[in-house]
Amino acid sequence: MLTDQQILRIPGPTPIPPSVNRAMSQPMIGHRGQSTSDMISDIRPKLKRVFGTEQEVMILTGSGTSGLETAAVNTVAPGEEAVVIVTGSFGERFAKICEAYDIKTHIIEVTWGEALKPLAVKEFLQEHPEVKAVFSTYCETSTGVLNPIPELAAAIKEVSDALLIVDGVSCIGGVETKMDEWGLDVVVTGSQKAFMLPAGLAFIAASERAWKKIEDNPRPRFYLDLKKHRDNIVKDTTPFTPAISLLFGLQQVLQLMEEEGLEEVYARHRLMMEMTRSAFNALGISLLTSDEDASPTVTAVEPADFDSPVFRKIMKREFGMDIAGGQQHMAKTIFRIGHMGYCSPADMLQAIAAMEIGIVKAGKEIELGKGVRAAQEIYLNEGKR
Amino acid sequence: MLTDQQILRIPGPTPIPPSVNRAMSQPMIGHRGQSTSDMISDIRPKLKRVFGTEQEVMILTGSGTSGLETAAVNTVAPGEEAVVIVTGSFGERFAKICEAYDIKTHIIEVTWGEALKPLAVKEFLQEHPEVKAVFSTYCETSTGVLNPIPELAAAIKEVSDALLIVDGVSCIGGVETKMDEWGLDVVVTGSQKAFMLPAGLAFIAASERAWKKIEDNPRPRFYLDLKKHRDNIVKDTTPFTPAISLLFGLQQVLQLMEEEGLEEVYARHRLMMEMTRSAFNALGISLLTSDEDASPTVTAVEPADFDSPVFRKIMKREFGMDIAGGQQHMAKTIFRIGHMGYCSPADMLQAIAAMEIGIVKAGKEIELGKGVRAAQEIYLNEGKR
Repeated sequence: MLTDQQILRIPGPTPIPPSVNRAMSQPMIGHRGQSTSDMISDIRPKLKRVFGTEQEVMILTGSGTSGLETAAVNTVAPGEEAVVIVTGSFGERFAKICEAYDIKTHIIEVTWGEALKPLAVKEFLQEHPEVKAVFSTYCETSTGVLNPIPELAAAIKEVSDALLIVDGVSCIGGVETKMDEWGLDVVVTGSQKAFMLPAGLAFIAASERAWKKIEDNPRPRFYLDLKKHRDNIVKDTTPFTPAISLLFGLQQVLQLMEEEGLEEVYARHRLMMEMTRSAFNALGISLLTSDEDASPTVTAVEPADFDSPVFRKIMKREFGMDIAGGQQHMAKTIFRIGHMGYCSPADMLQAIAAMEIGIVKAGKEIELGKGVRAAQEIYLNEGKR
Repeated sequence: MLTDQQILRIPGPTPIPPSVNRAMSQPMIGHRGQSTSDMISDIRPKLKRVFGTEQEVMILTGSGTSGLETAAVNTVAPGEEAVVIVTGSFGERFAKICEAYDIKTHIIEVTWGEALKPLAVKEFLQEHPEVKAVFSTYCETSTGVLNPIPELAAAIKEVSDALLIVDGVSCIGGVETKMDEWGLDVVVTGSQKAFMLPAGLAFIAASERAWKKIEDNPRPRFYLDLKKHRDNIVKDTTPFTPAISLLFGLQQVLQLMEEEGLEEVYARHRLMMEMTRSAFNALGISLLTSDEDASPTVTAVEPADFDSPVFRKIMKREFGMDIAGGQQHMAKTIFRIGHMGYCSPADMLQAIAAMEIGIVKAGKEIELGKGVRAAQEIYLNEGKR
């Protein structure tokens, strides 16, 4: 096999565009110098457009979890009540953070593979008027579900003043996000998914309503204190030493997104989702999520008559292609294909054609080329819309 | 379209493996220091294995043409006779070099798309006993023909003492080459094809017989004087300043070839050729060359009912995929797909699936997925051999 070829088709980290790798290899600069301020000044408006907000998007040096923790510790005071909607493994992470910080945490469990139901959340809030914050996941990476966040926001507002906090780690940058228009209060994402960067940065924005709560919140915090971050970013700087290489990369990522056009970026992600789903439908292999609940960034497949771990090993051995397994109780029953960030329809054609071979080698009889054909038809029809 | 994605499927230059790019970005070192000597010492035996020779393989800083010129000026004295077998555009290059250097040049023309006939060359040499050298092309990049070099060498030896000089630019490193066993006298290649490097290095080896001629040849030469190169490389150095970055890359390329195993490298190239050819056969689209004459490194396609330049533009626009056109009188009638060097069966599945879309968009009706299926079947059968 061709050595030194790795085809990364997992739902993060995702491949890095060559120009971003080049940007990240620039020589170090002082993080208190003018060059860094100029870079942050260039980044700020572009990052706001990706979040769909007029608010500042703050840049933390930390992984996605640091962003989730930042959301929790800044918006909820000790002893207050919050509800966490758990649709999979990453919803559970939010619950653990809340529990670690003396937050009275209610959990709304949703069956893995299904999206949350806004009506159920609304009813829960009517029964629990003391809840101050709702924690939700936009794309649940562990199942490939895109939760209906705009509908959730609208449902909550009908009955409650609770803040809506959204983990957008595995989709923002690949899926349309209109924070202000939808009325989201805190939105968080990380750098290693649709943002096409290595892990190491978290991005977080808060609504005016959320800022009031953040300012009044007596909870002790320092590195993750959003007020410190906001007071600095408005002056094009950071409260603590930033990961300069990742900022170089972020600047180039945002440049690439603007070159392609955000609408085009989102359309490309939907197209890749549809190509992938139509391929497995054509091959008669079950998808974990319904069309309605599916995320444009990751697809979970639940094979009935071949072994997912065996299939994944074959893909790695034959093609150097990384396909993700499931998590927790789904570790061995599903596999997940990432199609976000630096990933194109041509990459999906490759993944589908190679997976057909992997499926045959894993022991399932299929009509070769049938999944590819379905994906090609989706691609060709897309142009006619 | 995803910006910053370029899928290079032309017959050179070819994509650079990531580890080779990393190797080439090492800091400069002095070319007369121990580190450079150590590097050349590591490179020499590995380069000999790729050429299939016990002779030294010399490393010139120059493009492939400098290697071809080196072959001509070192082995043929002014006024001597030589024959150039022209099977395409790169055979013509050899003829032009010979003519520039006062060599009485005979030309054996072969129809583009066909391989040379050893018997015809043998008969020509019987009629022209004064010919001192035969110039041939191993893979004719302009048509995707792999000429039968071992058979040519055997045929020449039956009737002549002429040296056999072989341009291996677009195949050595991807196709088995047994210089000593086959009795080749001079073998030349460049760095930007199956060697997976940027252009800038030429590699050249000579047989004992050729060395005698080189030593006795009174023709003036300096930079391209092979004696100077040999006298230096045996001491792990070079007569002139070498392109250090490319040597860093070459060292890593040879390491990758050894890791994969040369036999595996050659088998991978044959497999990619068979996948590509079977795909176009399944789609009912003509190939320029016969199965027997086809090169494992490049495939030329001659479409009858869609326009090649239009198709190539579509591939670039839709997928950022570069497919080469033809050369000279075939510029607009054929297209050529490179499958050498840093290129895998998964890359060919991608190219074929994407080209099916390009063919449809260029106006030809085909059964989508049929070419992919044929290539997948070749891949699956390969494992059973």
